[in-house]
This record gives sequence, C-alpha cells and structure tokens, in this order.
Amino acid sequence: MAEHTVKAFDSEISQLRGLIAEMGGLAEVAIRDAVDALARHDEDKAKQIVAADARIDALEAEVDRLAVRVIALRAPMADDLRDVIAALKISGVIERIGDYAKNIAKRVGHMEGRAKIGPLTLVPAMAEIAQGMVRDVLNAYGARDSLLAIEVINRDEKLDNFYNSLFRNLVTHMMENPATISSAAQLLFVARNLERIGDHATNVAEMVYFAATGQYFSEKDGPRDTSGVV
Amino acid sequence: MAEHTVKAFDSEISQLRGLIAEMGGLAEVAIRDAVDALARHDEDKAKQIVAADARIDALEAEVDRLAVRVIALRAPMADDLRDVIAALKISGVIERIGDYAKNIAKRVGHMEGRAKIGPLTLVPAMAEIAQGMVRDVLNAYGARDSLLAIEVINRDEKLDNFYNSLFRNLVTHMMENPATISSAAQLLFVARNLERIGDHATNVAEMVYFAATGQYFSEKDGPRDTSGVV
Repeated sequence: MAEHTVKAFDSEISQLRGLIAEMGGLAEVAIRDAVDALARHDEDKAKQIVAADARIDALEAEVDRLAVRVIALRAPMADDLRDVIAALKISGVIERIGDYAKNIAKRVGHMEGRAKIGPLTLVPAMAEIAQGMVRDVLNAYGARDSLLAIEVINRDEKLDNFYNSLFRNLVTHMMENPATISSAAQLLFVARNLERIGDHATNVAEMVYFAATGQYFSEKDGPRDTSGVV
Repeated sequence: MAEHTVKAFDSEISQLRGLIAEMGGLAEVAIRDAVDALARHDEDKAKQIVAADARIDALEAEVDRLAVRVIALRAPMADDLRDVIAALKISGVIERIGDYAKNIAKRVGHMEGRAKIGPLTLVPAMAEIAQGMVRDVLNAYGARDSLLAIEVINRDEKLDNFYNSLFRNLVTHMMENPATISSAAQLLFVARNLERIGDHATNVAEMVYFAATGQYFSEKDGPRDTSGVV
C-alpha cells in the first residue's frame, strides 16, 4: 500500500477497535445491570437494558459496514486482513454477549415468589466472574496482550464450576419448593446465560491470543462448552 | 475483474456455497439425530453426534479460510464482496446451530426417570419444525429464493408458541413430580435450544432475503428472541 493508504488503513483499524471497545463496554455494563435488576426486582431498569441492547446491535452493524469498506477500498493483505476479519468476528460475539444480558433482563418480570429462592443470592457473584472475563478480554484485545488472554481462558473453568454448583442448588430448591418452580426455572436460564457469556469471552480470548502470537491456543471447536452438567 | 479472474471468482463462490450446503446438511441431521437419541435414550448415538460436530466446525474454518483468500486475491467489489461476507456470516450461524444440536445430544445421558416425563413425547414434533426451518433456509440460500426465506421467517412464531407451551407443560410436570425435576430441567434446555435454532434459521433467512432483494426484511436486532416466556 502507498504511504497515504497505509495511514488511512491504520486510522480505519483504530476506528474499528474503538467501536469494538465501545460495544464491549456496553455489554459489560448490561451484564452487571441485568443481574442487579434481577437481584433487586427492578422491572424499569430491566426494560432500559432491553432497550439499550439496540445500541450494541447498531454498533455491530457499523463495524460490519466499516470492515467491508476497508476490505473493498484498501484490499489489505495477510496480517492486516486478519485484523479486519478478527474485528468482524469479535463484534459478532460481543453482540451475542449483549443478547445474553438482554435475555437475563427479560426474565426479571417472571420471578414470582423470588424472595423465597435462596440460590438467587448466588447469581451476582457468578455474574461478576462473567463480567470480569468480558472486561479483561476487551483489555487484552485493546493491548494485544496474549498473557491476559490466557488468564481469561483459564478463568472459564471457575465459571463452569459455579454454574454446575448453582444448577444443583436450584434443582434441590425446586424439589423442596414446588410453588416457586417456574421462577427457579428462570434462574436456571440466567445461570446458563452467564455460563455462555464466559464461553464467548473465552472464544474472543482465543482469537486475541491468535492475533497476538500467530498460533492457535487450542483446537477451535466453536463456542466452548466445558460445563459438566451440560 | 479480468475474465479469467471472474471465472475463478465464480468458481470460488460456488465452492463457498457448496461448503455451506454441506454444513447445513450436517447440522440438520444433527438436530434430528439428537432428538431421536433423546427420545430413545440412545447414549451411543448421542456420543456420535457430539463427535460429528467437529466436522461442522472444520467446515466453518474452511469457509473462513477460503473467504479470506477470495477477498485477498480477487478484491471483489459491491455485490460480490457482500456475497463473500454473507458466506462468512452464514457459516458462523450454522456452526452455532450445530452446537445447539450437540448440546441436546450431551443431555441424553442426564435423563434419569425419563419414562415418567410426559412432555418428552412433545419434543420430536418441536424438533421437526426447527429442522424444517434449517432445511428450507438452506434451500432458500442455495436458490436465492426470497419467498421461501419469508416463509421460514414466518414459521418462527409457530416454533415460539410451541416452546412457550412446552415450557408451561414442563413446569407443571415438575410441580407434580419433584423426583424427576433434574431431568425435566434438562428438557427445558432442550426446548430452549430448539427455539434458538429457529431464531438462528430466521436470521439466516433475513440475510438470504437481503442478498436476494437488496432490502432489509426488518430491523436487525441480533438473533431474534420473540418467545414470550423468555
């Protein structure tokens, strides 16, 4: 590429990274707020989170448009092309993370008898792990930090263990409290959504590792699903 | 593009479409087999489905590689570039559909007391709708058939209604049969996975509609999630 083209390309790549950082920040906040709305039974906040997800979707569309334009105008090669494709893929994953947070928010209004569901008090701690994985994988992406990426990947096991334990807790609770089964079932999905957020953060971490080192961290097998209970 | 480049490009696009058709066929079979294994408690078959998912993942990686090569070598513009990007996105969605089928298969071994769970008998009919949506959206993609794409989009509501009804059924069953709550909870996830497969087929249908007509079918808002129960 000619020098002015290189400069334009660099500025466009920065713009892509900026959009992804913005998406990630919104997704992270959405996770925290959704679980907070769930814990405090705040239906208004839940509605705001559902509405705010449209902004994440719009940012993904912007990343798509910009990435396609960069490819079309600059015809980047090798590493540069890989950078653009990575932006396309990562924005898709963050959009899904936003969807999981939105889905948690949607359940806030379906929690009749929630005060009696003891395991609900465990959810914020689980959410904090998931949210931290999203925050750190975005930092790793921004800084091309392969060590931080590995750290995120390793944290997924902790989240899976939390999920397995919460699943068992909820099933026991259901057996003993048939009256709140419907609400406890909503919490099963919430726990599963948080577990999936961790899987997706782990996938992004693997992409960041690859981009930073040129090597695959492990065999790619789609969003990881290592939780024992399934 | 020069004539020989155009020919090479056309052949590469055909190759991409062929890979996607192969992925879609495998995902469709995986859905049917997973629910069949669940209904007949066939743990061996379930294991085969989990193992077979690696082939879908490998095909996605092949689509990615080929798409990136096509972009790098041919620098396609406008419609052609959109075609390649669509292939990249659609392969990602099919990979996820395969993951949902794999996840259903993984639950086969966790269904203690399954004979007593009446709602289990409803799952194959729900799976048939989801599987049909995947099959038809792939046909719509292959034939660039916008009418068939609309038909798939409209079918999603039926699947959502099925999900809502099955969810209520399962919760009622749980209340009346505390001993099988753990297995019934697995079925909640199975139903949810099938519902998500429909959402993803709908998303592909919207992409097919866009590719065929140049117009958006509806506002994009990520994988659709229109089921009432959440």
